[in-house]
Amino acid sequence: MLKETFEPRFTDTDALGHINNTRIPVWFEGARSPVFRIFTPDLDVHNWKLMLARYEVQFHGELFYGQPVEIRTWISRLGTSSFDVSQEVWQNGERGASGTTVMVHYDHQAGKSVPLSEELRAALSALSES
Amino acid sequence: MLKETFEPRFTDTDALGHINNTRIPVWFEGARSPVFRIFTPDLDVHNWKLMLARYEVQFHGELFYGQPVEIRTWISRLGTSSFDVSQEVWQNGERGASGTTVMVHYDHQAGKSVPLSEELRAALSALSES
Amino acid sequence: MLKETFEPRFTDTDALGHINNTRIPVWFEGARSPVFRIFTPDLDVHNWKLMLARYEVQFHGELFYGQPVEIRTWISRLGTSSFDVSQEVWQNGERGASGTTVMVHYDHQAGKSVPLSEELRAALSALSES
Amino acid sequence: MLKETFEPRFTDTDALGHINNTRIPVWFEGARSPVFRIFTPDLDVHNWKLMLARYEVQFHGELFYGQPVEIRTWISRLGTSSFDVSQEVWQNGERGASGTTVMVHYDHQAGKSVPLSEELRAALSALSES
Repeated sequence: MLKETFEPRFTDTDALGHINNTRIPVWFEGARSPVFRIFTPDLDVHNWKLMLARYEVQFHGELFYGQPVEIRTWISRLGTSSFDVSQEVWQNGERGASGTTVMVHYDHQAGKSVPLSEELRAALSALSES
Repeated sequence: MLKETFEPRFTDTDALGHINNTRIPVWFEGARSPVFRIFTPDLDVHNWKLMLARYEVQFHGELFYGQPVEIRTWISRLGTSSFDVSQEVWQNGERGASGTTVMVHYDHQAGKSVPLSEELRAALSALSES
Repeated sequence: MLKETFEPRFTDTDALGHINNTRIPVWFEGARSPVFRIFTPDLDVHNWKLMLARYEVQFHGELFYGQPVEIRTWISRLGTSSFDVSQEVWQNGERGASGTTVMVHYDHQAGKSVPLSEELRAALSALSES
Repeated sequence: MLKETFEPRFTDTDALGHINNTRIPVWFEGARSPVFRIFTPDLDVHNWKLMLARYEVQFHGELFYGQPVEIRTWISRLGTSSFDVSQEVWQNGERGASGTTVMVHYDHQAGKSVPLSEELRAALSALSES
């Protein structure tokens, strides 16, 4: 499991006084960078090999400005050419949000999905929940 | 069904040359304003009566800068105190993304959900898909 | 002078209950699209001819969610290869923010600025303050 | 001088392949949190004592996804009730952007500026450039 810790920014809040719901996919995308590096080690955007198919986010409690958050990230499913990334936001020992994103191994030039090689599967498997 | 049309902003794009996936929840939240007005007609944030429980977004095709997008919004489920808002992004006659958000009628001071009154149910029902 | 009117989104607010300061450059960039079209009529990002050199934003009063804002945009200076775009945010008859952005006519492949042709100067001059 | 280092997120990029200009005020606001803590040690948004009067940002070079950025922050001017925060973005040993933000010590309830106490002046002075 990957863990990333950072301080929310003031602009992440909204008028209800907590973190706005639309920030969670942004935080999750940021925390997926190590997953992206498995496919594109130098993160060169001209050599991108993934496509996002869908995501879902659940909100379990309020998240606030002023205390660090920890994003936990792991691979929760490995398909033929796609895989699921599960993620959680923790703050003060409580889980504030969780979600799953379906990523597809993709050839952007050919416009089609590409099966995950054994090498990629092994690297993704190393990012398990436990 | 509600329809909102606007031009994507340059900053909505990412290095893959299309609209970044994290912008869709932002567009969807913006397009839910008429739903928010059913609960808080003047949109006074100090009198807010809704909480977001979860959302999911599916990506069907690429969305681009340079052409207007239309957000379609309707109520797809009415529960006792919660309801679903279904939304789609259309551009150039194609559906680029869709999603559903679960909203809860909520008393932020008491910290608990509140059943939807007949008046609220009637107003939400008027925003059906057809 | 160009005028664009839209409703702020809930996520544009912050925990102080008003529009967050970092949203103004986003709104301004969105409202510069007609200026971008002078250089790239179809807004094709692969044929981009501008670079942003600097901007400044002044805050004159609070801006809120729940009421439309109007962005006013005009060209306030024409240089050899650069020009200034002045912009204001109005809400409820009051000016909440203003700013100026310096744009450079730029060849991204050659990595250097390009003098503004007479045709471009005429098109930009048409977007004057009055 | 304060230094904060983090990895840009994919969504910070735009279709030109680099970091979008509107992200810099967001990064700068995030990096000002230690300055905010001088006024509100627990960052409680209900006890906020600052107002943003203006900012300016200069772009010196392109910033990219895939390499960490360092934000440098220091106090460059101390007035009676206001002060300037100067900030820079560095990546790969080069300064990509710089800017200055004018903050005002402010009583949000009374709606007026408040002179900086000797204690606040001392704390701010400690965040000098050198």
